[in-house]
Amino acid sequence: MSELKEQLAIGVDLGGTNARVALVSTSAGVVESERIATSSLERPGQFVDWLAQHVATWSKDRHLVGVGIGAPNGHHGRGTIENPPNLPWSGVSPVVSMLAEATGKQVTLDNDANAAALGEVRFGAGRGHDHFAMVTLGTGIGGGVVVDGNVLRGADGFGGEVGHLIVEHGGRPCGCGRRGCAETYASVRGLLATVLQGVERGDPGAEAFDDEAFRTDFEAAGRRVGEAAAAGNPLALAAYGHAAEMLGRALADLASITAPSRVVLFGGLVLAGDAFLGPLERHFEAGLLSCHRGLIELVVSSLPPGHAALLGAAELAFRRADQA
Amino acid sequence: MSELKEQLAIGVDLGGTNARVALVSTSAGVVESERIATSSLERPGQFVDWLAQHVATWSKDRHLVGVGIGAPNGHHGRGTIENPPNLPWSGVSPVVSMLAEATGKQVTLDNDANAAALGEVRFGAGRGHDHFAMVTLGTGIGGGVVVDGNVLRGADGFGGEVGHLIVEHGGRPCGCGRRGCAETYASVRGLLATVLQGVERGDPGAEAFDDEAFRTDFEAAGRRVGEAAAAGNPLALAAYGHAAEMLGRALADLASITAPSRVVLFGGLVLAGDAFLGPLERHFEAGLLSCHRGLIELVVSSLPPGHAALLGAAELAFRRADQA
Repeated sequence: MSELKEQLAIGVDLGGTNARVALVSTSAGVVESERIATSSLERPGQFVDWLAQHVATWSKDRHLVGVGIGAPNGHHGRGTIENPPNLPWSGVSPVVSMLAEATGKQVTLDNDANAAALGEVRFGAGRGHDHFAMVTLGTGIGGGVVVDGNVLRGADGFGGEVGHLIVEHGGRPCGCGRRGCAETYASVRGLLATVLQGVERGDPGAEAFDDEAFRTDFEAAGRRVGEAAAAGNPLALAAYGHAAEMLGRALADLASITAPSRVVLFGGLVLAGDAFLGPLERHFEAGLLSCHRGLIELVVSSLPPGHAALLGAAELAFRRADQA
Repeated sequence: MSELKEQLAIGVDLGGTNARVALVSTSAGVVESERIATSSLERPGQFVDWLAQHVATWSKDRHLVGVGIGAPNGHHGRGTIENPPNLPWSGVSPVVSMLAEATGKQVTLDNDANAAALGEVRFGAGRGHDHFAMVTLGTGIGGGVVVDGNVLRGADGFGGEVGHLIVEHGGRPCGCGRRGCAETYASVRGLLATVLQGVERGDPGAEAFDDEAFRTDFEAAGRRVGEAAAAGNPLALAAYGHAAEMLGRALADLASITAPSRVVLFGGLVLAGDAFLGPLERHFEAGLLSCHRGLIELVVSSLPPGHAALLGAAELAFRRADQA
């Protein structure tokens, strides 16, 4: 078991804005890290070259057990990044075999949400929880589900899609082609859509958001809703309440299947604090089967922003080494 | 591994109508079995005594690895049957410790739906499927979910409740105290409720069910809807179609989380054949995330009625022995 002596691995978090690579220790977490703008990585080969340089530097005087990568649309079983929506390149890229060839190291890959869940299990709020879920409420919703201590990937590698549990049949159209997914309500995008509906109806508080900038600057708009909620704006509070109700539905359905002891939340919506977490706690608890009530904690990730996926990517490498 | 040489165990299926006990072999399945009316077992002690007799008889000339029990509201971790709704006794009964004391054998217990899933994994349509679900469409819906080859019990032992995925928010009241659970639409009880709604509305075909007997004789009513569907009655066909749509929603949500390669169906509704399975297949496939489409088979259990839980109960004992 890797708990017994310190091990080192390299963790990689490939995001839509930045790619990050870190030297990670089982005892100390992130030892050193570097980042690069994802837009500068025009092809998978450039990503692999950038990584290979860091692997070479960090492995000079040390034994590294391997490299783990968390990436959007990363497929653990195939070692590929498949048709990523927010990267400079498209198609299916065999990143694992490319980096293994370039470095001679053992390389493991998973999607970013599963990596984040593993990061929480090893270094964060998931420690000690064999049944656990990590839900990232960002532009979309990322879900990583842990069952019996392992990431639930399913037969085809695409399990754990908490954000695509359907919470309103016939509801909002989702990027996945279906309707009513949790992601269409309880992501930052979903929250903004709810606010805009209120603006169109002229709901109380709508005047705070009835301007062109709110419709065009996505990141600023998200912050503005959070600030307005903190100041008591009724439309902002109602929008967080609606997102909370819809996420509560998804998490209650998740609980009916996987019965976790803890759900860790992360991402934009969580920054609103009680305006979101208060109603979420109430809707979630009321929506649970009675046998689960009072048994499932909702907690906010305590890792630095983005660290969960980076640490979890390294954890992929630690686990692979333990199995070898 | 128990595949290598034949092993014997005793499997027990405690149902609302009958209790059954069987001598089960890893190679041949059920070797011998006995049954008794559950109503004659007035206390847990009588159930344990009845089992102990069979354990004594069957273990005379043989080595038995242990006893496994599948029971409604059976809790694997605690070895108890807890507040069973359809048994002659109530409260919490420590059946595992009682039977272990009476027989000296290793005893393992789980709820009946999880036992049925294990029976399919070892002896039925679940063989070779590490990610798998078994759904029994009887009076209610029983769900057993297998992940990485193991029953998904969750942190509190109450995972895998496929029948309590919510398929219609604000929908029909469920026995669990919530609304819109799959069980309220896609169980025999749910099917009959749908037919009765059609009778009240005077839908085409309603005349076949507009009598007192249909409202009072539950088992006969279920058969009548099946026969009417086979004869082309439009209300019966619409009711199966509605049940199929609702079950399709639940199974699509299940797939988003556990991504099984196969779902095995069993129980009353399945007997209707294509009237139910045809629309189920269509609704399920259309409701899936595109990454799962074409990858998840819906199949009907091929084990004799009731055998899945009996065999799965024995499988609990085989697995326990393998771990020892």
